[in-house]
Amino acid sequence: MTAQGIYLDNNATTRVDPDVLAEMLPLFTEQFGNPSSMHGFGAAVGGKIEWARKQVQALLGAAHDSEIVFTSGGTESDNTAILSTLEAYPKKKSIVTSVVEHPAVLALCDYLEKKRGYTVHRIGVDNRGNLDLDAYKAALGPDVAIVSIMWANNETGTIFPIEELAQLAKAAGAVFHTDAVQAVGKIPMTLATSAVDMLSLSGHKLHAPKGIGALYVKRGLRFRPMLRGGHQERSRRAGTENAPGIVGLGAAAQLALMHMTDENTRVKALRDKLEQAILAAVPNCFVTGNPANRLPNTCNVAFEYIEGEAILLLLNEADIAASSGSACTSGSLEPSHVMRAMGVPYTAAHGATRFSLSRETTEEEIDRVIAVVPGIIAKLRSLSPYWSQAGAPKEFAPVYS
Amino acid sequence: MTAQGIYLDNNATTRVDPDVLAEMLPLFTEQFGNPSSMHGFGAAVGGKIEWARKQVQALLGAAHDSEIVFTSGGTESDNTAILSTLEAYPKKKSIVTSVVEHPAVLALCDYLEKKRGYTVHRIGVDNRGNLDLDAYKAALGPDVAIVSIMWANNETGTIFPIEELAQLAKAAGAVFHTDAVQAVGKIPMTLATSAVDMLSLSGHKLHAPKGIGALYVKRGLRFRPMLRGGHQERSRRAGTENAPGIVGLGAAAQLALMHMTDENTRVKALRDKLEQAILAAVPNCFVTGNPANRLPNTCNVAFEYIEGEAILLLLNEADIAASSGSACTSGSLEPSHVMRAMGVPYTAAHGATRFSLSRETTEEEIDRVIAVVPGIIAKLRSLSPYWSQAGAPKEFAPVYS
Ligand SMILES: Cc1ncc(COP(=O)(O)O)c(C=O)c1O
Ligand SMILES: Cc1ncc(COP(=O)(O)O)c(C=O)c1O
Repeated sequence: MTAQGIYLDNNATTRVDPDVLAEMLPLFTEQFGNPSSMHGFGAAVGGKIEWARKQVQALLGAAHDSEIVFTSGGTESDNTAILSTLEAYPKKKSIVTSVVEHPAVLALCDYLEKKRGYTVHRIGVDNRGNLDLDAYKAALGPDVAIVSIMWANNETGTIFPIEELAQLAKAAGAVFHTDAVQAVGKIPMTLATSAVDMLSLSGHKLHAPKGIGALYVKRGLRFRPMLRGGHQERSRRAGTENAPGIVGLGAAAQLALMHMTDENTRVKALRDKLEQAILAAVPNCFVTGNPANRLPNTCNVAFEYIEGEAILLLLNEADIAASSGSACTSGSLEPSHVMRAMGVPYTAAHGATRFSLSRETTEEEIDRVIAVVPGIIAKLRSLSPYWSQAGAPKEFAPVYS
Repeated sequence: MTAQGIYLDNNATTRVDPDVLAEMLPLFTEQFGNPSSMHGFGAAVGGKIEWARKQVQALLGAAHDSEIVFTSGGTESDNTAILSTLEAYPKKKSIVTSVVEHPAVLALCDYLEKKRGYTVHRIGVDNRGNLDLDAYKAALGPDVAIVSIMWANNETGTIFPIEELAQLAKAAGAVFHTDAVQAVGKIPMTLATSAVDMLSLSGHKLHAPKGIGALYVKRGLRFRPMLRGGHQERSRRAGTENAPGIVGLGAAAQLALMHMTDENTRVKALRDKLEQAILAAVPNCFVTGNPANRLPNTCNVAFEYIEGEAILLLLNEADIAASSGSACTSGSLEPSHVMRAMGVPYTAAHGATRFSLSRETTEEEIDRVIAVVPGIIAKLRSLSPYWSQAGAPKEFAPVYS
């Protein structure tokens, strides 16, 4: 609980860990030199960047630190992975992805389809958010340059079977990229023994600052840079290195690895406590996505017959920060593309509310949210013209009931 | 003079101004929310980003704050400007640029020429670094999609006649982009009344942090984003906003505008004092570039018959940070492409040393550099096998003599 309240919107962005900020500070005003400069102001910087690269390598369980390319964030990493591969394999004209990807993948794919003549296979999901594996296998073929499938969904936390998907893609001769922006730092990874070729991550989702990210590029993979200019990042990403951001990401990676067990035990237990308490206390609500295979920090509850925005407003008045769908789509009247893809009925999708915890979340905070949510929902429903006539949803079976 | 010594490498990168850092700090650990989120943690952030946009607008003298697009730095801005325009005008297949551009423009142009079939006209310079205006006019034609010419050169500080070049480009129907990474914050600008269509700047060159930059895009100009995903920056640059970096750039822009007079009087006077003292005390050296039309902070002196790297080493031992050519090319055995383009003879180009000042530079520091440089040069020459036989250079007339 900070001065401002209870923050349960960690899938949107996280607070920079004060220890991360402390590591960054000297790089703004003391060791501010260009790492490629021949003088004292830049001397320590190169070493710190390489230290940071090793921390990210360790968090991903990657074989080589040279496989980590620092970027400006998740979107740049996603765009780079896809565009690099299409350029490296100019004869292949198809892309396989899923309907529930983040816009950083979907908007680029839409563009490539409309403006550059690519065929895009968007694999669907079932009502628990699980990928349609048969459709996936059917889409793989010799014309597929790249498969880009997210590791975990930002709205529901649902985890896709990445290793299986990657192996199938490799067998079909395609490069396999995963947008792991939500997964990195929350679940353990061992890319050294994985079939994953490329992986995107974003600093601000794991208590590093905004404006820094990384792309994992497996050794030996064909790579074409998106940003061209100087020879930074072994000529894979031009531009003066964002040294404070890189060191921040390194420090955050180290902390995430240290807290991995906490995330998957204490944080998970808090999430489960919150979820079960809400489901027990509030009628006509259910968990979206696959509850059995989810990120430990994420819980997305669809409250029927009310608007997510209204829920957020009342939560905000109670000093609780949560989210309805992703930040990118909030503000629009349509339910998010993820809710629609799972076939969540509109009456429930509109009330989908995401609570995303972090290692900073305390039990006291969760208890307070549990105490507050049922009253908020009841209040909103008492004002809803739909609620009086409503029964339990018919079209869609609640996951817990 | 900091604890680490005298920093005269401000064209490579600058120290983040402590006041800039102070503005940024709350955005890491307090106001860390996503500006598009519906809760208190993000509430103040959107307003701060818009404040920052107005500061950058003011520094550039732009007509509208919506003309400022925040990016990750100078390289991304340069790449975006060129790629956007080529995509917006798909039928035009030529680019006009200069031989002395930064790699962020030149490397992209090389790639577009080799891999995408574009014709690239690289306009040359004379031995003072002035653009060949006849060749420039001759290169302009209906097939030219974009002209990309830097406002001021990073190595010599030489300023190009941007307004004239922009008007000629517009008359020929081309979009005019300028890489003003070195010029912004050092010389006044009024883009509102200029023919310039696009302009790149980079935060870390003006006491903002690394990892943030901006692209000015004149209202009404056709624009195609390079990063695709969310709708940030009015759909011109996807990705969660680097809020601390943006606010830092805003604060730095405000400070730069406030110090513009100081830069062009006090800093310029210090630069001139340094330069004249070196030229007076050291034989066989001269200023490269156009001394009459230069950035106020930059001085690049070519010392004949010695290696720039050796000079930098001894300067470093005296706690003075300078640079030989640009940081990107230092470390290579060839003189920089800028020195070669001006026809500076190898015997002198190898000893080109750039002293780049900032508003943080003091007279005491300059006096110390003046006291130290002649001895360093004499020492190195006493060790040089070439020096004993050498006279004044024949091929190239020193600018001051
Ligand atoms: C799954 C996923 N991919 C990509 C992104 C984009 O990352 P960024 O906003 O750092 O560019 C996000 C977050 O916004 C995300 O949740
Ligand atoms: C003239 C010029 N253009 C572009 C750049 C690239 O900027 P950045 O390194 O911030 O990407 C630089 C500096 O490195 C520069 O001096």
